[in-house]
Amino acid sequence: MPTVKSDAAPIITLTTDFGLQDHYVSAMKAVMLGINPATRFIDISHNIPPHDVMAAAWILHNSAFMYPPNTVHLTVVDPGVGTHRKPVALKVDDQFFVGPDNGLFSLLIQDHAYEAVELNNNKYWYTETPSSTFHGRDIFSPVAAHLVDFLDLRRLGDPVEELYTYKWAIPVADRDGVQGWIIHIDRYGNLITNIGRDLIEEHIGNGSYNIYVGNTKIREIVDTFASVSEGEPVAYIGSSGMLEIAINKGNARQMLGIEKGSPINIVLNQT
Amino acid sequence: MPTVKSDAAPIITLTTDFGLQDHYVSAMKAVMLGINPATRFIDISHNIPPHDVMAAAWILHNSAFMYPPNTVHLTVVDPGVGTHRKPVALKVDDQFFVGPDNGLFSLLIQDHAYEAVELNNNKYWYTETPSSTFHGRDIFSPVAAHLVDFLDLRRLGDPVEELYTYKWAIPVADRDGVQGWIIHIDRYGNLITNIGRDLIEEHIGNGSYNIYVGNTKIREIVDTFASVSEGEPVAYIGSSGMLEIAINKGNARQMLGIEKGSPINIVLNQT
Amino acid sequence: MPTVKSDAAPIITLTTDFGLQDHYVSAMKAVMLGINPATRFIDISHNIPPHDVMAAAWILHNSAFMYPPNTVHLTVVDPGVGTHRKPVALKVDDQFFVGPDNGLFSLLIQDHAYEAVELNNNKYWYTETPSSTFHGRDIFSPVAAHLVDFLDLRRLGDPVEELYTYKWAIPVADRDGVQGWIIHIDRYGNLITNIGRDLIEEHIGNGSYNIYVGNTKIREIVDTFASVSEGEPVAYIGSSGMLEIAINKGNARQMLGIEKGSPINIVLNQT
Repeated sequence: MPTVKSDAAPIITLTTDFGLQDHYVSAMKAVMLGINPATRFIDISHNIPPHDVMAAAWILHNSAFMYPPNTVHLTVVDPGVGTHRKPVALKVDDQFFVGPDNGLFSLLIQDHAYEAVELNNNKYWYTETPSSTFHGRDIFSPVAAHLVDFLDLRRLGDPVEELYTYKWAIPVADRDGVQGWIIHIDRYGNLITNIGRDLIEEHIGNGSYNIYVGNTKIREIVDTFASVSEGEPVAYIGSSGMLEIAINKGNARQMLGIEKGSPINIVLNQT
Repeated sequence: MPTVKSDAAPIITLTTDFGLQDHYVSAMKAVMLGINPATRFIDISHNIPPHDVMAAAWILHNSAFMYPPNTVHLTVVDPGVGTHRKPVALKVDDQFFVGPDNGLFSLLIQDHAYEAVELNNNKYWYTETPSSTFHGRDIFSPVAAHLVDFLDLRRLGDPVEELYTYKWAIPVADRDGVQGWIIHIDRYGNLITNIGRDLIEEHIGNGSYNIYVGNTKIREIVDTFASVSEGEPVAYIGSSGMLEIAINKGNARQMLGIEKGSPINIVLNQT
Repeated sequence: MPTVKSDAAPIITLTTDFGLQDHYVSAMKAVMLGINPATRFIDISHNIPPHDVMAAAWILHNSAFMYPPNTVHLTVVDPGVGTHRKPVALKVDDQFFVGPDNGLFSLLIQDHAYEAVELNNNKYWYTETPSSTFHGRDIFSPVAAHLVDFLDLRRLGDPVEELYTYKWAIPVADRDGVQGWIIHIDRYGNLITNIGRDLIEEHIGNGSYNIYVGNTKIREIVDTFASVSEGEPVAYIGSSGMLEIAINKGNARQMLGIEKGSPINIVLNQT
């Protein structure tokens, strides 16, 4: 059933690996303005590392549910463009998403029910014969511009039962503690892990422990990076609710020599 | 004759080499909002390599004609600011452009009729005594903000018969095949050539051929980069209608060691 | 007293060191759209070097006063988040600013009267229990979105008498000439000094002089970089009204080997 629309001018967010040194993002916005001239755009990021589907999934997941109802999120990180992966649209809670079915939506749907369709109704495409390399311009953008207008997935194509989900690393918790991984490194060089606040409260609780990452040992989780002296490593629960490692006023990636995918261990002291 | 306006809030696109680490883009937007508070901005790119007029021409040409009628494109890559080059505005098809007459518009006007004026009516400048280094703020931005309102070139200054056009490399086609050049490299490291689909159809047709670029030989043009195995070089007609060379899920610039300006040859097999 | 509002949709500018590869900017915009769906955003810069409060102060100062009355400038470069530094809002002339009281507003208020409040009314926060690491999302953004609506500082918290001001280098002028420093280097590699036009007119006037920066000597101040041959160093009064050093069509930072903080001397010839 179509959703009731608000009065506000429609919002489409964009999350891509296109960068802004080429015309790709401009072409998509031009297509959308041609369909719906009042559309407002929010650029979430065009700096996703090329082809890094899971980096896009992470960024999307961390802010998409904060947007006003009926926001449409156009997400194009699409290394398999022109092959068999399906172009899809989905609704999760009160948000809409449009993009390739290649794992981009893995984190959004892991804890939420969703409704999804394959974009096989070419009435809403930019052209009936889309290019093989730029579905962002030829399929996803025009679909997003129409969707933000009528808010009805069913007009876009046939239902899809299950979307492709990427296997995302899951932390391991046992009597020795918790082992997780660095899943994102931000602009400051802060290391974001896949260990959430709940897991720490449940498995570590008030126990005594040490945290090991690379060659570094950290003795406790504190409130914020500024809780320690400048240049010191620090562990804290970040704004996404996940355990993070940082250097106060420094760059943990560089100073600790850690890359994405590195393990991190919270080891309980045996008593 | 002035163009009839639509109801939609006016759109000004921006294409510059200013980057976003300085206040230059912000100053231009502030000037335009002061003149026309409802203006909406689309940032095509501020990442043009410093002073690279033809990189801006390429990006502009690849998306400008996709915008709604009466969009104004503010384009400031202006290494000759403060010298004799003319500040101009022009109309090509149903799109307007404002910027320095230094070759920026070469690709837009190569196949289109246009109408142009020199911006010598200082009534529409930000100040009667513009700085010598920032015509973007002092001349081009205020003119764009006024133009998007009245859509009449003649109020901005005197007609210009002919704009400066940069000599853009043209591919050579003969009985041996087609020789062209790499004219742009995108964020993925894909190599975009100046050899268009039409030229290939006309001069290569169904003939057998090989493609040579750097030390690499490619045997045929396929649909998309995903048509070959990961890590393999591939030739295809890109979304701009030009022959492109890529590495499937790789970076052709880095892996093939090719830079902008390098030659590419399609060599017909002699039978 | 609250300011009278105009009819135009409200504008919030953003100046941060968050970059655009993470979800931080998106989260702030989502919060603001939730409060005030018609809000329009102007991204001044998200490329401030991490933690570089004075770089943000410089960029902000160079364009903020050009915006339409009642623009709200959200400024988050906040290395001390979670510590004792105050979250504040202020009004300077007809512009509003929201951010941490850590020196960000030093340049804005050095020559202007201002009114300021501490943001201690949590009614306008995103949550009553803000995170310790992301006040941009939890305090500053929601406050900015409310402020652009009611334009009344007093509802946000208690008055603050005096804001923290960073010690900004001041040029030294005496009978020998003027000594200043490079306070900013732009995307082109142009060196912007803290020596303004007025100081030069007052202390140098029509005298004869030489300019020394690094190992380079420049004989006079000219109109623009294009006043000298390509590849030559040049001194001119830039668009911000400050003395700048550039290389015509080159990068002065690289070619002269100069970094931010380097001294520059205008030495009067003794007669």
